[in-house]
Amino acid sequence: MTDSTLNLPTNRIETLADGIFAIAMTLLVLGISVPNLPSSTDPQVFNAYIFSLIPEILVYILSFILLAVFWLNHHVFFVIKKSDITLLWINIFFLMSIAIVPFTTSLIGKYGQFHLSVLIFDLNMLIIGILFYSIFAYAKRHDFLVGSAQKKSASIQRSNLILPILAGVAIIISFFNSKWSVFIFFLLPITFTLYNFARHLFVRNKDHGG
Amino acid sequence: MTDSTLNLPTNRIETLADGIFAIAMTLLVLGISVPNLPSSTDPQVFNAYIFSLIPEILVYILSFILLAVFWLNHHVFFVIKKSDITLLWINIFFLMSIAIVPFTTSLIGKYGQFHLSVLIFDLNMLIIGILFYSIFAYAKRHDFLVGSAQKKSASIQRSNLILPILAGVAIIISFFNSKWSVFIFFLLPITFTLYNFARHLFVRNKDHGG
Amino acid sequence: MTDSTLNLPTNRIETLADGIFAIAMTLLVLGISVPNLPSSTDPQVFNAYIFSLIPEILVYILSFILLAVFWLNHHVFFVIKKSDITLLWINIFFLMSIAIVPFTTSLIGKYGQFHLSVLIFDLNMLIIGILFYSIFAYAKRHDFLVGSAQKKSASIQRSNLILPILAGVAIIISFFNSKWSVFIFFLLPITFTLYNFARHLFVRNKDHGG
Amino acid sequence: MTDSTLNLPTNRIETLADGIFAIAMTLLVLGISVPNLPSSTDPQVFNAYIFSLIPEILVYILSFILLAVFWLNHHVFFVIKKSDITLLWINIFFLMSIAIVPFTTSLIGKYGQFHLSVLIFDLNMLIIGILFYSIFAYAKRHDFLVGSAQKKSASIQRSNLILPILAGVAIIISFFNSKWSVFIFFLLPITFTLYNFARHLFVRNKDHGG
Repeated sequence: MTDSTLNLPTNRIETLADGIFAIAMTLLVLGISVPNLPSSTDPQVFNAYIFSLIPEILVYILSFILLAVFWLNHHVFFVIKKSDITLLWINIFFLMSIAIVPFTTSLIGKYGQFHLSVLIFDLNMLIIGILFYSIFAYAKRHDFLVGSAQKKSASIQRSNLILPILAGVAIIISFFNSKWSVFIFFLLPITFTLYNFARHLFVRNKDHGG
Repeated sequence: MTDSTLNLPTNRIETLADGIFAIAMTLLVLGISVPNLPSSTDPQVFNAYIFSLIPEILVYILSFILLAVFWLNHHVFFVIKKSDITLLWINIFFLMSIAIVPFTTSLIGKYGQFHLSVLIFDLNMLIIGILFYSIFAYAKRHDFLVGSAQKKSASIQRSNLILPILAGVAIIISFFNSKWSVFIFFLLPITFTLYNFARHLFVRNKDHGG
Repeated sequence: MTDSTLNLPTNRIETLADGIFAIAMTLLVLGISVPNLPSSTDPQVFNAYIFSLIPEILVYILSFILLAVFWLNHHVFFVIKKSDITLLWINIFFLMSIAIVPFTTSLIGKYGQFHLSVLIFDLNMLIIGILFYSIFAYAKRHDFLVGSAQKKSASIQRSNLILPILAGVAIIISFFNSKWSVFIFFLLPITFTLYNFARHLFVRNKDHGG
Repeated sequence: MTDSTLNLPTNRIETLADGIFAIAMTLLVLGISVPNLPSSTDPQVFNAYIFSLIPEILVYILSFILLAVFWLNHHVFFVIKKSDITLLWINIFFLMSIAIVPFTTSLIGKYGQFHLSVLIFDLNMLIIGILFYSIFAYAKRHDFLVGSAQKKSASIQRSNLILPILAGVAIIISFFNSKWSVFIFFLLPITFTLYNFARHLFVRNKDHGG
């Protein structure tokens, strides 16, 4: 006899996750600071101010892309038919580390020259990566995956390693060069897309060969 | 003959509740203040500033967990098939006390050393607890529960007492030690999980014995 | 032959409305200003500051209740089976006047002593009231209502007059006493609930008499 | 044999889009700055301050209308049955350029007198227009449209040109007169409504003639 309180349905947590992702992605914009200058400001001064916002806009773009990739991963590959209380809590900590991204993004946008800012952003990504890897690994171990996901679970688990590895590399690089440490994450969507493309080709070839 | 205006469907209020929970959880991040320092700031000064944010980050984690627990409770146990105008208003006041959590969280994050901040946060939790208890008690008394929830309603009502009791204890402690008063709420997810686990074991044993 | 571009489905605008209501209700909290005081502040000074927030908290409660009533009205009574481009635009202007409520609320919370603040809030409510009345009136005139709503449409249209009338009264009162002008809106949920209750009794009596 | 990872379902991206639109539309209100004046301020001074907010309120109205039109377009005409990884990324960049609208709106609301502010807003609109055009064009070229959309795809593609053209004109005008450059976008909802109305008449006439 199953106990409904321990085999929680997964669709509710997905609704919450959808909401938190959409809000976090839209709150990123608050990290781009609107100037607070007197209306009599010289146009040259105003233009200089706006150009100083370029790093904030770049990290806005980066973080938006990263959150989109995490959201996609959470949906496209994440096909878990049921959940238990442990998986629920891993998910809640995952969402907590997603919802804090507007803060860490704002930090590197404004203070990218300080190593600590970069380290905090990189750590945020590392935690997201580890928790995301754990969600899938836990679901796989406890047989919570739907049939179609079980077949390609090895491949998915490998692709889930990309983010924690990138974040680890970023942390190491940050001790030498803060700026490049952050932009290494632009590799994530590229790697992710290439990986899918490669896997797609490989699967198709195997199909044709079979 | 039933009157549709008084037996309101519950799914609409759930949609609103889902939205408010997701937004309140994501707005918590605005309580972590991004520094407003000149770019020529000394790294040491910047690091000191960041370390001074640790209490704000801790209460962010605490409040996120608490809102997640309230949200879970609102869904997992809250199986009410219909509603009336009174229940609707209790729910609206419940959501109002949820939506104010980013403010009270921000208050203890920034001014945890002041007793009044802590008292306001504890009162916020007490009100949430009382309203949540009332929702279920009212629904039970007026026979609005679905069948499966009716059977375990006594057990659910007991677990709904955990939060108001914890909040009451927190208020008393706050007069002696402000800091510990807040962190007592970390007991909520632990108690909640243990309670479920115990009940699960007990139910399973009874099943096996029967 | 019907043209799908002019007889738009209403469920999409409802999804948008649900989102905007939930977000506007949660953004109200940003109108309660978190103090920005040095950590060495005297507790007395801090307490005085917090007590000065009471008007902001009162208008938070008021506006949350008002938005909840508008949201309820938008759902419980608003049973429109189809829409055209005009109705869509009335709805968009209605949502625009809902989404600006966090601003007008923040204004009376912080500057309730100024007549202009109160006037802006009252005008906001008047516009919401007029647009809401127009939505239903337009839908009725163009035969867009579902069957059940058609029967009680006269009663609904009467209850839709409550808000514009209250707002008109509030504007007149505001020229004599700013503070009371705002709190007159607390009559809205009360009137609304009493009206429904009276209608319910009346309908039941007629049923019993028939 | 189809590969599910490359023929992604479109309903998930729609959920994300709905959320981002609703949040961006509601965050626009944060661009209207609540004054930060001492409570002893002279009423005349306060009134003068409020009247200085009129441009911010006008651009709030403009941007809300524009986002509503984009959202409508995204739904009413956007009938795509499947997606691939490229279309997904165009969509993500489209949503990124939507989510930044509260920033560019706030910029022209506060600093409309500076050419650079206006140029940034116009560029934002141009990018939205180009990406939106690309979404439909890509879907059409790759046969991702549902049957009903295929028939009127030429007409839709023409109407999708309105925004990029308006934005291009706005950019040129901005070099002569900043203020009018922004308000040219009020033509978008008007053109859009007229265009639909004209097409509707034309279609009906053809039906009657046939």
